[in-house]
Amino acid sequence: MIPRYTPAAFSELWSNATRYATWLEVELAACDAMEVEGLVPRGTAASLRDKRLVLDPDRIDEIERVTRHDVIAFLTHVEELAGADARWLHRGMTSSDVLDTSLALLLVRATDELQARLDVLVEALVRRAREHARTPMIGRSHGIHAEPVTFGVVLAGHLAEMKRAQVRLRAARREIAVGKVAGAVGTYAHLSPALEERALAALGLRAETVSTQIVARDRHAAYFATLAVVAAGIERLATNVRHWQRTEVGEAEERFSVGQKGSSAMPHKRNPILSENLCGLARLVRAYALPALEDVALWHERDISHSSVERAIAPDATTTLAFMLERARSLVDGLVVYDARMQHNLERAGGLYFSEAVLLALVEKGMGRQEAYVLVQRNAMKAFHGEGSFQDNLAADPDVASRVDRAELGRLFDLGHALRYAEEIVERAIAEDAG
Amino acid sequence: MIPRYTPAAFSELWSNATRYATWLEVELAACDAMEVEGLVPRGTAASLRDKRLVLDPDRIDEIERVTRHDVIAFLTHVEELAGADARWLHRGMTSSDVLDTSLALLLVRATDELQARLDVLVEALVRRAREHARTPMIGRSHGIHAEPVTFGVVLAGHLAEMKRAQVRLRAARREIAVGKVAGAVGTYAHLSPALEERALAALGLRAETVSTQIVARDRHAAYFATLAVVAAGIERLATNVRHWQRTEVGEAEERFSVGQKGSSAMPHKRNPILSENLCGLARLVRAYALPALEDVALWHERDISHSSVERAIAPDATTTLAFMLERARSLVDGLVVYDARMQHNLERAGGLYFSEAVLLALVEKGMGRQEAYVLVQRNAMKAFHGEGSFQDNLAADPDVASRVDRAELGRLFDLGHALRYAEEIVERAIAEDAG
Amino acid sequence: MIPRYTPAAFSELWSNATRYATWLEVELAACDAMEVEGLVPRGTAASLRDKRLVLDPDRIDEIERVTRHDVIAFLTHVEELAGADARWLHRGMTSSDVLDTSLALLLVRATDELQARLDVLVEALVRRAREHARTPMIGRSHGIHAEPVTFGVVLAGHLAEMKRAQVRLRAARREIAVGKVAGAVGTYAHLSPALEERALAALGLRAETVSTQIVARDRHAAYFATLAVVAAGIERLATNVRHWQRTEVGEAEERFSVGQKGSSAMPHKRNPILSENLCGLARLVRAYALPALEDVALWHERDISHSSVERAIAPDATTTLAFMLERARSLVDGLVVYDARMQHNLERAGGLYFSEAVLLALVEKGMGRQEAYVLVQRNAMKAFHGEGSFQDNLAADPDVASRVDRAELGRLFDLGHALRYAEEIVERAIAEDAG
Amino acid sequence: MIPRYTPAAFSELWSNATRYATWLEVELAACDAMEVEGLVPRGTAASLRDKRLVLDPDRIDEIERVTRHDVIAFLTHVEELAGADARWLHRGMTSSDVLDTSLALLLVRATDELQARLDVLVEALVRRAREHARTPMIGRSHGIHAEPVTFGVVLAGHLAEMKRAQVRLRAARREIAVGKVAGAVGTYAHLSPALEERALAALGLRAETVSTQIVARDRHAAYFATLAVVAAGIERLATNVRHWQRTEVGEAEERFSVGQKGSSAMPHKRNPILSENLCGLARLVRAYALPALEDVALWHERDISHSSVERAIAPDATTTLAFMLERARSLVDGLVVYDARMQHNLERAGGLYFSEAVLLALVEKGMGRQEAYVLVQRNAMKAFHGEGSFQDNLAADPDVASRVDRAELGRLFDLGHALRYAEEIVERAIAEDAG
Repeated sequence: MIPRYTPAAFSELWSNATRYATWLEVELAACDAMEVEGLVPRGTAASLRDKRLVLDPDRIDEIERVTRHDVIAFLTHVEELAGADARWLHRGMTSSDVLDTSLALLLVRATDELQARLDVLVEALVRRAREHARTPMIGRSHGIHAEPVTFGVVLAGHLAEMKRAQVRLRAARREIAVGKVAGAVGTYAHLSPALEERALAALGLRAETVSTQIVARDRHAAYFATLAVVAAGIERLATNVRHWQRTEVGEAEERFSVGQKGSSAMPHKRNPILSENLCGLARLVRAYALPALEDVALWHERDISHSSVERAIAPDATTTLAFMLERARSLVDGLVVYDARMQHNLERAGGLYFSEAVLLALVEKGMGRQEAYVLVQRNAMKAFHGEGSFQDNLAADPDVASRVDRAELGRLFDLGHALRYAEEIVERAIAEDAG
Repeated sequence: MIPRYTPAAFSELWSNATRYATWLEVELAACDAMEVEGLVPRGTAASLRDKRLVLDPDRIDEIERVTRHDVIAFLTHVEELAGADARWLHRGMTSSDVLDTSLALLLVRATDELQARLDVLVEALVRRAREHARTPMIGRSHGIHAEPVTFGVVLAGHLAEMKRAQVRLRAARREIAVGKVAGAVGTYAHLSPALEERALAALGLRAETVSTQIVARDRHAAYFATLAVVAAGIERLATNVRHWQRTEVGEAEERFSVGQKGSSAMPHKRNPILSENLCGLARLVRAYALPALEDVALWHERDISHSSVERAIAPDATTTLAFMLERARSLVDGLVVYDARMQHNLERAGGLYFSEAVLLALVEKGMGRQEAYVLVQRNAMKAFHGEGSFQDNLAADPDVASRVDRAELGRLFDLGHALRYAEEIVERAIAEDAG
Repeated sequence: MIPRYTPAAFSELWSNATRYATWLEVELAACDAMEVEGLVPRGTAASLRDKRLVLDPDRIDEIERVTRHDVIAFLTHVEELAGADARWLHRGMTSSDVLDTSLALLLVRATDELQARLDVLVEALVRRAREHARTPMIGRSHGIHAEPVTFGVVLAGHLAEMKRAQVRLRAARREIAVGKVAGAVGTYAHLSPALEERALAALGLRAETVSTQIVARDRHAAYFATLAVVAAGIERLATNVRHWQRTEVGEAEERFSVGQKGSSAMPHKRNPILSENLCGLARLVRAYALPALEDVALWHERDISHSSVERAIAPDATTTLAFMLERARSLVDGLVVYDARMQHNLERAGGLYFSEAVLLALVEKGMGRQEAYVLVQRNAMKAFHGEGSFQDNLAADPDVASRVDRAELGRLFDLGHALRYAEEIVERAIAEDAG
Repeated sequence: MIPRYTPAAFSELWSNATRYATWLEVELAACDAMEVEGLVPRGTAASLRDKRLVLDPDRIDEIERVTRHDVIAFLTHVEELAGADARWLHRGMTSSDVLDTSLALLLVRATDELQARLDVLVEALVRRAREHARTPMIGRSHGIHAEPVTFGVVLAGHLAEMKRAQVRLRAARREIAVGKVAGAVGTYAHLSPALEERALAALGLRAETVSTQIVARDRHAAYFATLAVVAAGIERLATNVRHWQRTEVGEAEERFSVGQKGSSAMPHKRNPILSENLCGLARLVRAYALPALEDVALWHERDISHSSVERAIAPDATTTLAFMLERARSLVDGLVVYDARMQHNLERAGGLYFSEAVLLALVEKGMGRQEAYVLVQRNAMKAFHGEGSFQDNLAADPDVASRVDRAELGRLFDLGHALRYAEEIVERAIAEDAG
């Protein structure tokens, strides 16, 4: 969590204060459930809530330096503050009941924050895709001019990917919205499945099907892998912005704010630094998924090697992705689109992108595909090397002209026809319920 | 795909012969759809099917060495075999229409093979978990004896994880069951959305919402990440088998076949080599997910950098995981369980695992939690260092005896009570519909 | 950089204050060199140094929020503080001249801190390896008892690995001790190679052979990959401690401090949490190497996607590894070794580990290897299943007794002979100059 | 190892036949050394060599299906072929003595093959860098025109990186050229350090300082990480070719062979598919490093989880990199350079890249840096948006003209001056001894 890349909600969410407050929330929810089961005197949780305890993270850390055990330090501090009633807390529970349930709550909240940011990004993409549904540009494969698309279709592709990201985040949230109040090694020795279900339901969580000492870590692996996939989708968008903004392409550009400086040496430079930044951040989120995958195979009923990993990646991955989503939204919203330049680049291709239409027409006239290919290539290559326009070359080639006359050739070179489905594609992406 | 680790179905699935046959399948499905749309003469596909073409992979490779383009080589070969009718194939399509749709078909089939193997593994886990629902063993956290569990509960944990794997594989199949017949850069310039839908439906696939030249690669990233998560679940199981089989633990053992040799130097050794092998293979499947994540951000409407990656990881990841699932199933089925040794290890703990029950009883008698902790620790540590049994020490400690009498103490040391939910947990895992 | 895992030297090293101070250091070194070349008035750097500027990170951040460019913000702030002379700074330089040279300085310093910690760890391993050079324990392959080793030899293996780590860190330091004062795109348009060399030499750095806008990132990739390898070595050590401390093994244990609590529920538990923690941290350092590898292929003369990555991983990877080295040293120093338990476990094997000696003796008597193997296995298996001791079984087996008499058999069962090279191995590891 | 990407030398190197032949080579070298030590009758190895055994991999596999142990299967087969003498082989050794020493030999040979390919790539880069030492092109940062470079300098940057790769490969070879003939758990119980040294020296290897059952795996981790770094360097080169070949840039192009087809739909397309392929392959080599890093922390004196990993990645990583090096060499050799287009693109920048020279001149005249920046930016931006040339705008700006007259301005706009160090940089890269 680098301050530079940390939205305020996330520095709050992953603070020690929130951490300990969430632990208390879990203990109190468990206490409520224990009261129902008669394990703890009625009213204990209510009385503790009434004290409106303000936990002091520094004090907890101080106790932990002696006990070397964070949950014991926390409970000791609660007992310091709340007195005798606190002894009922954590009854029959193990540290991981608190830690894992609490982690689930924090990850759920983080995911809701992510989803909210993703929703806004999706809206921005919807807006811009519709705006440019009919703005033609040259499509490129291998970085080489291919056939025309519209800018709206291109954005709709990113939109569709981000809608899949919404679905994936929802699934990841479900995976992770799972806590545990099952005691040491998960056997409910001093608790019960009913108690657990009640406590977790109050927190909006489900119970782990079979706990060990902890909630199973395949859930977390799947969760962080999902974040990596979402980040990769933003990386694709950012990569494309970087291409569009290249000097020679110049089709779109990040909004450049007043006062911003592109270079300490070259005053006129306007660099796609937001997009480059997003590409770097995507690498980080990708990397954070790896230790989560290595965390799955813990020993026996648990070892604690996952803990240091999660202390790092739970804040780092969610925060970085949240920042990316915000930045991507602002990137899409602010993107300056140069449609004249798109038109200009499209025209540079000299209609070569209609080669396929010509090829098809020749095949339809009965020519073999390979023969037609050679014929089209001959005329395309001449045009490509600056010798005549493609259309003129074709018209002048007797092998073509004998099959396709000039008028028909004209109809083949129709951009409107080539792009007739553009709006439908955009609207399909918008309409789709990716879930 | 190392022959050693390749189930026969997968060497078949990922052969060149299957690859090209699948391409033809896609071309013919597209041809059918084109006939409906009137783009191609009625009966073309049927007539081609009637020829029962047997493609020659070597001949295709030979042509490719000249054209440097695999789909063109394939089409040329089809035209060699089938004659003039073949010119209608691929009309208005781009290579990726064939390649990506074909990849989808192959991955779907691979996933069905994976799911079938996973289902059998799940059944084996169900069987063994039920068998040992009441077999007590010591639960371990940090590798240290903690509180009792049953072996069935432990297996039920793996079962629950594998049932989540079933759900994840189903989701991954949905992600990947998406093809594309939308032409170059995905605009349907010479095709139509309706045609695409018809062609893909015949193949059991859906159409990509917004194609570029290709199907979006976030799908594949999510797919391979899912395989990595499933593999990590098997790694966890295998890691535990390795622990159980340790000389000092000796609670369970891989089936050792007649004639098998454990060591070239030590004839008596029986090593958990299947499980170790599974751990290594899980590392591979984990690694294969990474380049898939890097493949998402292709340039513009596509670049072909993903292709070499997928040529490697599509066979390697699916095949390795299939092998792992088979081996894991045979591991579970054949696992030799030494319940007497489990009992022995459990007893070694000298009832120390009842410390929590004692702690809770003391707290219930009104003692502060930290005070009770110290009291229990005092007696536990004596027993731990060989001085008296834990129960006797407690009975002899006046601070305990004044609160908990000997009879009550006896009730606290009841294994049956501690494990009263074991069968319920096992049955819950079996009953759960993880989907 | 999680405070919990951050040595003080590293929170200082990676602070904004140090960052900007290092930038100034670089600018002044370059200014000195420019004075020599006559590009800047003599005495400029000295006069600026005399002002003992105290940079205000918050003010720089404030300016950056407008300029969106960190080096320009820094220079503006320096000009605010130092007045007119500051205009000579950065003459003909580009931001990356400052940033990359500064990063090199910080990484060099971090590496020196790492090396210092590694040296102390090596010393601890030397000490403990010598101490236990002759402490026998059972060696294990596949977690199964194999043949005897000594604990000193085992530690010497870790020692040898950490000495290789020293060599690798030195090489990594060389890779990274490279700066750049070559201006935009590295052409020295307003500078010169001689000037660059002079400026960097004053900082203890070499010049990049061929800069682009920046220092080449293969250096950083190699650097962070090296940290991952070193971390994996510590992971191996920690994994072994975890095994030794298992309840059933009990051969060595992390030092348990007074007041430390192992479990919130089980007062007697002593868990190898430091070692588990080290395993988790190794996963993180491993992961941090990946984005560094992805950073190599920047576009053209540079893109800035590496920057966000390095803002995260440069502090995170070096700090985490530093913490690991400190913790590993304290782990080794404090390791409580239970040699009686080692002896006990060794004896449990009932001399089966001498099976190879017997096998060899039989082969030397002319028996075929496979035949001898079967013979030894027969007797080993009986002993393994509790039927007689291995040595007695052999003596009673006529096929053995006819070849190896009881006295000779006795000599084969000699632990001292089996371990005769133990001290030599330990001393070899200590003596080795791994460089 | 996909046939498509496998140089012949590597399919040979990683064949089963070579594998088993290398095992025999190791056994015979050990046998020689044992003869010297008097452990085995003199002449045994010579007599076995005289038999010129031709091992049958299929037969070995057949035996392994029963024994489940590859080295025992191999020894059994050797005994089948060679008769009684073979019983002296492997005396006192453990399987890993053969396997790890053999792996070292194979990796050393693979590395020599890699180095040979890298050397040729370096030569190609030397040739092309010299050829274009003075070919000006626009340098780009962030994909945006920055200041001029020469194409030779750019290639020299790749050259310098590949020379560092040579050094890294040499270091990696040293890391890996380490075998082991130390018996089970590495204690020389039936062998000796002197014997080991002799046997390994005959194979061109050094002895592991402290073996466990195996050679330490940090060596392999460092080795595969090195391959990943080298691959990333090629990825950078390939990425740049892809950029140069973009339609809008057009500065260089992969050689397009006669008969090659760029697209099944667009006959004129010439796509940088070799370069894209290299980018994908780099992702694979990067991924293969990861499981090697996870292999380090084996349990105790060894577990065999690394084995399946290495069966996959040792062939896959070395072969893929070898193919990459070959392809990169052919890419560099065949690269078609369009210097006229470079010139054209350079001129498009309208001299804006001289902005820094102007900025510096103004600062030298006493203007504050920020003030000068604003002044230059004002005129640059006008030119950038098509209003006048940059030089004319400056000349017409009274704030500039009052300080820098037209003649001086002319001297600032001198490309030759800006690139005066280009050849020196190229020659420096060529001359450098990176080792």
